[in-house]
Amino acid sequence: MRIAVDAMGSDDRPAPDVEGAVMAARDFNLGIALVGPQDTIEAELAKHDTSDLAIEIVHAGEVITMTDKPAESAKAKQNSSMHVGMRLVETGEADAFVSAGNTGAALAVATLHTLKRVSGVKRPALCAVFRNMTGYTIICDFGANADCKPEYLLQFAQMADVYTRRALKIEEPRVALLSNGEEEGKGDELVRSTTPLMKDLPGINYVGNVEPKEVLKGETDIVVADGFVGNIMGKSFEAMASYMGTVLREELTANPVRMVGAALVKPGIDSLRARLDPEDIGGVPLLGVNGVVIIAHGRSSAKAIRNAVRQAKDAVDEQIVTAIRSSIGAG
Amino acid sequence: MRIAVDAMGSDDRPAPDVEGAVMAARDFNLGIALVGPQDTIEAELAKHDTSDLAIEIVHAGEVITMTDKPAESAKAKQNSSMHVGMRLVETGEADAFVSAGNTGAALAVATLHTLKRVSGVKRPALCAVFRNMTGYTIICDFGANADCKPEYLLQFAQMADVYTRRALKIEEPRVALLSNGEEEGKGDELVRSTTPLMKDLPGINYVGNVEPKEVLKGETDIVVADGFVGNIMGKSFEAMASYMGTVLREELTANPVRMVGAALVKPGIDSLRARLDPEDIGGVPLLGVNGVVIIAHGRSSAKAIRNAVRQAKDAVDEQIVTAIRSSIGAG
Repeated sequence: MRIAVDAMGSDDRPAPDVEGAVMAARDFNLGIALVGPQDTIEAELAKHDTSDLAIEIVHAGEVITMTDKPAESAKAKQNSSMHVGMRLVETGEADAFVSAGNTGAALAVATLHTLKRVSGVKRPALCAVFRNMTGYTIICDFGANADCKPEYLLQFAQMADVYTRRALKIEEPRVALLSNGEEEGKGDELVRSTTPLMKDLPGINYVGNVEPKEVLKGETDIVVADGFVGNIMGKSFEAMASYMGTVLREELTANPVRMVGAALVKPGIDSLRARLDPEDIGGVPLLGVNGVVIIAHGRSSAKAIRNAVRQAKDAVDEQIVTAIRSSIGAG
Repeated sequence: MRIAVDAMGSDDRPAPDVEGAVMAARDFNLGIALVGPQDTIEAELAKHDTSDLAIEIVHAGEVITMTDKPAESAKAKQNSSMHVGMRLVETGEADAFVSAGNTGAALAVATLHTLKRVSGVKRPALCAVFRNMTGYTIICDFGANADCKPEYLLQFAQMADVYTRRALKIEEPRVALLSNGEEEGKGDELVRSTTPLMKDLPGINYVGNVEPKEVLKGETDIVVADGFVGNIMGKSFEAMASYMGTVLREELTANPVRMVGAALVKPGIDSLRARLDPEDIGGVPLLGVNGVVIIAHGRSSAKAIRNAVRQAKDAVDEQIVTAIRSSIGAG
């Protein structure tokens, strides 16, 4: 298997991107195509021992930055590392593409300029994996589609169902709609219109509508939402976790007695952090395009990139794209 | 001043409701009208020393429960404690009403059956107060209106601006729209349509669009959103804070060494909890109706009810309703 990795994706590119790709090549015995400016990547690769690793550079002269406008840059920079990397997947020269770059641009490059939508898929969706009290919850859509119709949400459920069964090995995953109350009649117009349709959707284990607290309690495996609301919920979780981490650090170092106590509970705090660590998960798969694309966080470390590559490998192994084709085709 | 308090609002009614009202009567030297079934309230009041306190019972024979459907119960139970309490405000027999009951029902009772909308106000809104890193952020709307138009959001900004200036004593409060990215062009259709209008809104210190992390960092005093999204963000904050509290407790008690450490850092954990304590704030004002209405959390303790009464008193002192009348009338 050969995974294409965007060398110019992350905020600190190319260092974490290249190091993460090297780690992945070694740890998972994978072929890697590092995509970006040849010179830049060569200089970065020289810092690592890559003997015995199947790492190749594929030159891409342009770079899409985090501040580039998605639609415009996707159209204008046809030789960006994203375009070149996704074209490798399109032509079969790579099995998947991983990027920690501009999410909106990656979406536009995949959907409009390279891989294109799977036939029958109305809107590709981002499928974020969050930890909950007992395991993982998939939020779909996590931000690809701010404005949705009920039929998009039904397909998000179907695509997330495929991903959850195959990549997370959960049989009969529970699917819920995100709402501002569990009772019927709650929700915005989109949720209220989608609820009865979701109930009747064949093959989907719809368990009702949930609020954010049920998501974190693990009362559903998949939570379906439009990309605006799904993104706000996920980012609110992240923001509060980060906020509490900061406040906790302040409180535990406020005086010498607490610092002694903090030293004793440090393994517990480390474990808390590990239980919330997004690096462990990797990235966010873009479902519904003709190829495996994993979008990692812009602030990704090498470890996060490595794990996003593992996630890409798993998606390829599990034939996610083929399964989505059958699911949506059959839907 | 005389504040009407719903004795039958909270999940554990009437105990916290009555105790909180008694505390408020004493602490703030207020007249209190406890609204609900005479016998029930008398029995509960007998548990407290109310000598020298200006507490009176106003009988209301019906009770709206948390599982009652809002619109239906607001129409059917015209003698509920909510109806009777709000009518006291309508007739001037009370200056404000506090309830920890069914939020949707309280909205319907206020808007459709008793106090009614302030002339010119398109949609009354809930204005939740959240702590951030440096102070407080107002989320408006917090759930009264799931489906909104740009003109509603503009009024939410105006009403929250009045409340923030007067009740929170913040001059020139910063106002932002909630979005899934700070850049222009992000957001759902509603946010994108509202952004240019918000920029031009006279008297409003619009500082741009924010994501959840900027909200918690305190980069705005007011965050405006439709009630569905505003509610999801606020509840996501609460859910993650609660989740982390649970995990932290598990980790700090996992073994004897950590338990010793936990004892040493306990003041820090208590302080962390206090910094996130919603009880401290009280309730959520309903802005845009002809009277002060504060809706407290269903799980309110006596202390939370007491603080919601204080919040009602402040809103009366600061003439919030009159100020909203002028603001929207002038808008």
